[in-house]
Amino acid sequence: MAAVKNAPQWVRDLKPASPTGPELLEQERKSSNVNVDQLANFLFTKEAREKKRKILKLLQDDKVFDKSQNYFAGRIDRFETALARAKALQKLAVKHGLDDDEKKIAELLISEPGPYGLHEHMFLVTLRDQGSEEQREKFFKPAQAYKIIGCYAQTELGHGSNVRGLETTATWNSDDKTFTLHSPHLTASKWWIGSLGRTANHAVVMAQLVIDGKGYGPHPFVVQIRDLKTHQALEGVHVGDIGPKFGYNTMDNGYLLFNKVKIPHISMLARFSSVDAKTNKYVRPSSPSLVYGTLTWIRSTIVMQAGSVLARGVTIATRYCAVRRQFQDRDAPEWEKGENQVLNYTMVQIRLLPLLAATFALHFTGKGMQALYEANHKKMAQKTSDSNTTRGTGPEETQSSSDLLADLHATSCGLKSLASSVAAEGLEVCRRACGGHGYSSFGGIGAWYADYLPTATWEGDNYMLTQQVARYMLKSARSVLQGQEPSNDTTAVLSWYHKRQDQGAAFDILGKDEDIVSAFAWRSAYLTFEALKHREEQKRTWNSLLVDFYRLSKAHSQYMVVKNFHETIATNNNLDPETLSLLHKLFRLYALHTLETESAEFFTSAAATVRQIQLARSKAVMTLMEEIRPHAVRLVDSWDFPDWQLDSSLGRYDGKVYEDMFYRANDLNPLNRVDIDPYPDSATLFRKNESDGLKSKL
Amino acid sequence: MAAVKNAPQWVRDLKPASPTGPELLEQERKSSNVNVDQLANFLFTKEAREKKRKILKLLQDDKVFDKSQNYFAGRIDRFETALARAKALQKLAVKHGLDDDEKKIAELLISEPGPYGLHEHMFLVTLRDQGSEEQREKFFKPAQAYKIIGCYAQTELGHGSNVRGLETTATWNSDDKTFTLHSPHLTASKWWIGSLGRTANHAVVMAQLVIDGKGYGPHPFVVQIRDLKTHQALEGVHVGDIGPKFGYNTMDNGYLLFNKVKIPHISMLARFSSVDAKTNKYVRPSSPSLVYGTLTWIRSTIVMQAGSVLARGVTIATRYCAVRRQFQDRDAPEWEKGENQVLNYTMVQIRLLPLLAATFALHFTGKGMQALYEANHKKMAQKTSDSNTTRGTGPEETQSSSDLLADLHATSCGLKSLASSVAAEGLEVCRRACGGHGYSSFGGIGAWYADYLPTATWEGDNYMLTQQVARYMLKSARSVLQGQEPSNDTTAVLSWYHKRQDQGAAFDILGKDEDIVSAFAWRSAYLTFEALKHREEQKRTWNSLLVDFYRLSKAHSQYMVVKNFHETIATNNNLDPETLSLLHKLFRLYALHTLETESAEFFTSAAATVRQIQLARSKAVMTLMEEIRPHAVRLVDSWDFPDWQLDSSLGRYDGKVYEDMFYRANDLNPLNRVDIDPYPDSATLFRKNESDGLKSKL
Repeated sequence: MAAVKNAPQWVRDLKPASPTGPELLEQERKSSNVNVDQLANFLFTKEAREKKRKILKLLQDDKVFDKSQNYFAGRIDRFETALARAKALQKLAVKHGLDDDEKKIAELLISEPGPYGLHEHMFLVTLRDQGSEEQREKFFKPAQAYKIIGCYAQTELGHGSNVRGLETTATWNSDDKTFTLHSPHLTASKWWIGSLGRTANHAVVMAQLVIDGKGYGPHPFVVQIRDLKTHQALEGVHVGDIGPKFGYNTMDNGYLLFNKVKIPHISMLARFSSVDAKTNKYVRPSSPSLVYGTLTWIRSTIVMQAGSVLARGVTIATRYCAVRRQFQDRDAPEWEKGENQVLNYTMVQIRLLPLLAATFALHFTGKGMQALYEANHKKMAQKTSDSNTTRGTGPEETQSSSDLLADLHATSCGLKSLASSVAAEGLEVCRRACGGHGYSSFGGIGAWYADYLPTATWEGDNYMLTQQVARYMLKSARSVLQGQEPSNDTTAVLSWYHKRQDQGAAFDILGKDEDIVSAFAWRSAYLTFEALKHREEQKRTWNSLLVDFYRLSKAHSQYMVVKNFHETIATNNNLDPETLSLLHKLFRLYALHTLETESAEFFTSAAATVRQIQLARSKAVMTLMEEIRPHAVRLVDSWDFPDWQLDSSLGRYDGKVYEDMFYRANDLNPLNRVDIDPYPDSATLFRKNESDGLKSKL
Repeated sequence: MAAVKNAPQWVRDLKPASPTGPELLEQERKSSNVNVDQLANFLFTKEAREKKRKILKLLQDDKVFDKSQNYFAGRIDRFETALARAKALQKLAVKHGLDDDEKKIAELLISEPGPYGLHEHMFLVTLRDQGSEEQREKFFKPAQAYKIIGCYAQTELGHGSNVRGLETTATWNSDDKTFTLHSPHLTASKWWIGSLGRTANHAVVMAQLVIDGKGYGPHPFVVQIRDLKTHQALEGVHVGDIGPKFGYNTMDNGYLLFNKVKIPHISMLARFSSVDAKTNKYVRPSSPSLVYGTLTWIRSTIVMQAGSVLARGVTIATRYCAVRRQFQDRDAPEWEKGENQVLNYTMVQIRLLPLLAATFALHFTGKGMQALYEANHKKMAQKTSDSNTTRGTGPEETQSSSDLLADLHATSCGLKSLASSVAAEGLEVCRRACGGHGYSSFGGIGAWYADYLPTATWEGDNYMLTQQVARYMLKSARSVLQGQEPSNDTTAVLSWYHKRQDQGAAFDILGKDEDIVSAFAWRSAYLTFEALKHREEQKRTWNSLLVDFYRLSKAHSQYMVVKNFHETIATNNNLDPETLSLLHKLFRLYALHTLETESAEFFTSAAATVRQIQLARSKAVMTLMEEIRPHAVRLVDSWDFPDWQLDSSLGRYDGKVYEDMFYRANDLNPLNRVDIDPYPDSATLFRKNESDGLKSKL
């Protein structure tokens, strides 16, 4: 924050009233003994944090990454700047030899979607993973060198999650060994495709493969769409930007239509399935579960990101609520009167502290999933190579590792849905907890929230995904009823419940941490067998059960989060006892607050008694909040966000909230350089013509 | 929607796949017999609807109100356009003699906050209601003629809801009979003040009155802040726009600081309190309850608006979910296969239909409150004039009418909090129910939601307000325990519960509508006496009870909504039996869905049994949704929003969703007129310099 310039001296001399933000935050940090450095290292590792600092320095040294006009600029300028940054980052990456991890760190620090986003995260990955060796040579290599720039075109104007419903066709021409890409209706227009609107000159297009009049379902094709030199759309291709959105306006999401465009045989990505050019026959996919695996991995990263996405909002709101003072505590003694820090009010705590706990819960859950995925991946790779050499190791083992994969897949669906919903909704809670100033762009939460929202829709719509979880849970429950041995955690829980259900539950949720985990497992299993009964005994329609399925998926995912959080802190030895004990409190706060929010299902399933839930609500949660409150600022400090990343007046580490708000409004705000004529009858609107010059800067 | 132009002929020839939006909406409207016209008249009156059509015509005929670039323009252009519209509307109002009601209708149709907003809705009203006759002459009259333009400056950078904490001082100078306005700290800067940033040349400033070193609390002062000719800030005044916000960017919310600015005696608005210039003494406020009354009225309008604010989102989402088709019904017979309308999925219904019911619930509740307010206002005015002539009519009667006012005041606090939260959160649910396209600005919900959000904060922060409700409920419960006779609905409910509590509740919530209302009353009373016990017997601190108070306020307000909805349809004779019976279903859906969402409190208070709630959840709500589903489109039609007002591709009355999305993206989107250079190493970003010309249009 630079000094205020555009104001008379008497304004520049003004200070905020005491106690000031810096004084209050200093006091907060003094009154807690959380070892911020140690906890931050535990969350991210020391190496990753050092890397972050190194890259932050690189970005701050380059003027193109300066953020000071971000909140003011209009769409075209934001896009122009984002493009300039994307190019500059790529050049930095080449110059300093940054690897993919380091580039991702840079993107997190820059914190805006950029026009190369889909080229890097979808186009390159798809070419690498789904292309044949020849295709990797032809497409992946020049793409990696940014000689061609691409995107991934799946969604259509009339077709979202349901890939089978896509209208775009790729018809095989056996005479000249080509495909004809075609958009039969307006609704077939590719839509929402990131990096397509203005940037990409290539696209991976998902289209219905048609051979000899017969459909083979959607397949990926690499297609050039713009001229490499003039950047104009090729003949028969119509492409453009889909217009402004609630957020994500630095990205050029685009549309794309084809009018019978011929593309060569090599265009169809051939690693898993292909058309044999000699026989004109379709060659079936070899190993669909590998693609399945990639999606599982992407979802696990969404879960882990959800923790830090939410932590940004919690950091900003917690710091600001420690700086902001309002009203007096009605019961405070006379000598203590004076406005109270907003963070002291229980109504603010109940909104922020469970979310603070959730940031850790989601982070640990994401980490746990990734560890499981990697372990399983290794095991499967091992088995594949074994079975390749020995052949026919027997069905049991294959079954068991695919069981694990199926479990991981279903879990990742449910957790992706839960985690991204918790993060998105939590950010809005944080924004509102900042009161009026949360509505200012300078608060830094609003734009972040708006940019994050699509995560609830992509990689599987959060509502749709819950059906996959339910389908898997029903299948698992059936296997338990059929007497099969448990082969993973889900079937273990279901079979435990099935054996114990006539005995009933007696979980000491207020006394024992493990019992909280059991109560969540119990509720999830109860809902599973209820759903199975509805579907199989009562023969209810699938559609009439969607709401139950949604609740089941949520219950199972909440169980997973609680379990992962508990396991992480139960097995940890790297933290000092005080910090560890605080994490235990955060665990209990997360679990008990979730339990009371969802209390109906805990009653109904008899996982907890009415009295226990009343006690959780009116005693345990309140006590935990009181115990965690003094450590709130240090806990958010351990999330280790540089101010440059947060770009928030309210969330400043040093507490100079009001100075920064004023500086941005007074010195950076271009509207203050426009003078208007306020009267209805006057002919002019803007008195000085400064506005024209200004607008080209906006 | 004009025809697509900027595309090759083959694109212009494309149609959406069948069945198209128009076909689907036609079918929807055919399959329901709701009399849309009759229901719309019942909601708004025929006269009001005709007025709306007349004004719509006036606006559509004036090019300045054209909305086609709204979603594309950057902040400065949006503000410039909003200013042009504000001026044009005022000129239209003069030309056609529009009254205040008609101007408000025009504002609703235009649907964007404008720079004259606070002049009209706060500055004028404050001058009229709080000014002396002399002040009305001096300030109100020229303000009414737009010779001076004002705003209402209360909130400060460091001070929000707590008016007593304001820092700006107005110190009385007995020597020259003036006040000195001063901002002692940066945190004293007025902030968020609508119409102040660029537009106003006057402000009503709330400042701490100081006479002879003693503080008398905040009082309103009329102050000129900018020169009437040059529009530059006056000496000692520093004023500007506070910068961009999450929404509301057509409004110039501003900041304002004073450096010992002298203003004359007449500046202090003197209707209720004043400084006697002769004696230099403070003259106490005469009738604070009148101001109290105005706030109550404003809150009741917020409740009523909440219904139609939400109805916009519900209209858009319902129509689009009837047009959008995705996936197949798993249980559908083979011959019926084909993608299913999204509105047929129960997971979509459970999100939209209870909100559809809520739109009616809130509308009727707002109407009910306003009727009660007006009746009470008349009664009080009558009594005041009686007591003015006869004097001393006795304390009982005064007590009873002030009891009613207190009840209305507390109710309005709770309902304002509930209704604006339901509307804001509901809009976001509607936006997400539109799937990916809900994220596009052309959906029309996002910007509307963002502009509405401040309602949760102003006229009493939604969380703070709940303390006032709780305080009132506790006071009422005490009066019941002391054996006082009920004097209003709240004390009647509390005393009914108090007498009946040892007998228990046995409400037939699934069988009788009245019993649903009773169950809501029971829960509210139970929570009141519980809170009283915590506070008085257990001596718990006020702060530790804030969460309970919030829940109590919500419970009481939900009871009020359920009661008002029930009363409206129980006493109505203007609707045909079929429509009335549908409204009864909507009532039950609203009530039972709320009941199951809040089920923990219904169990705990024994207002309903676990079995009843299970049945409500798995049977009653599902059946009601099935019954309401066929009428959904006609029900939203009866909210009577012109397409011009909605400005939404997804919510079009005619169902031409995809054509409109494409037209806006392809033909209206200025980003498509910019060509870029996509490669990292190229020197240029934008290839053609069209962008400069463009930016001045953005």
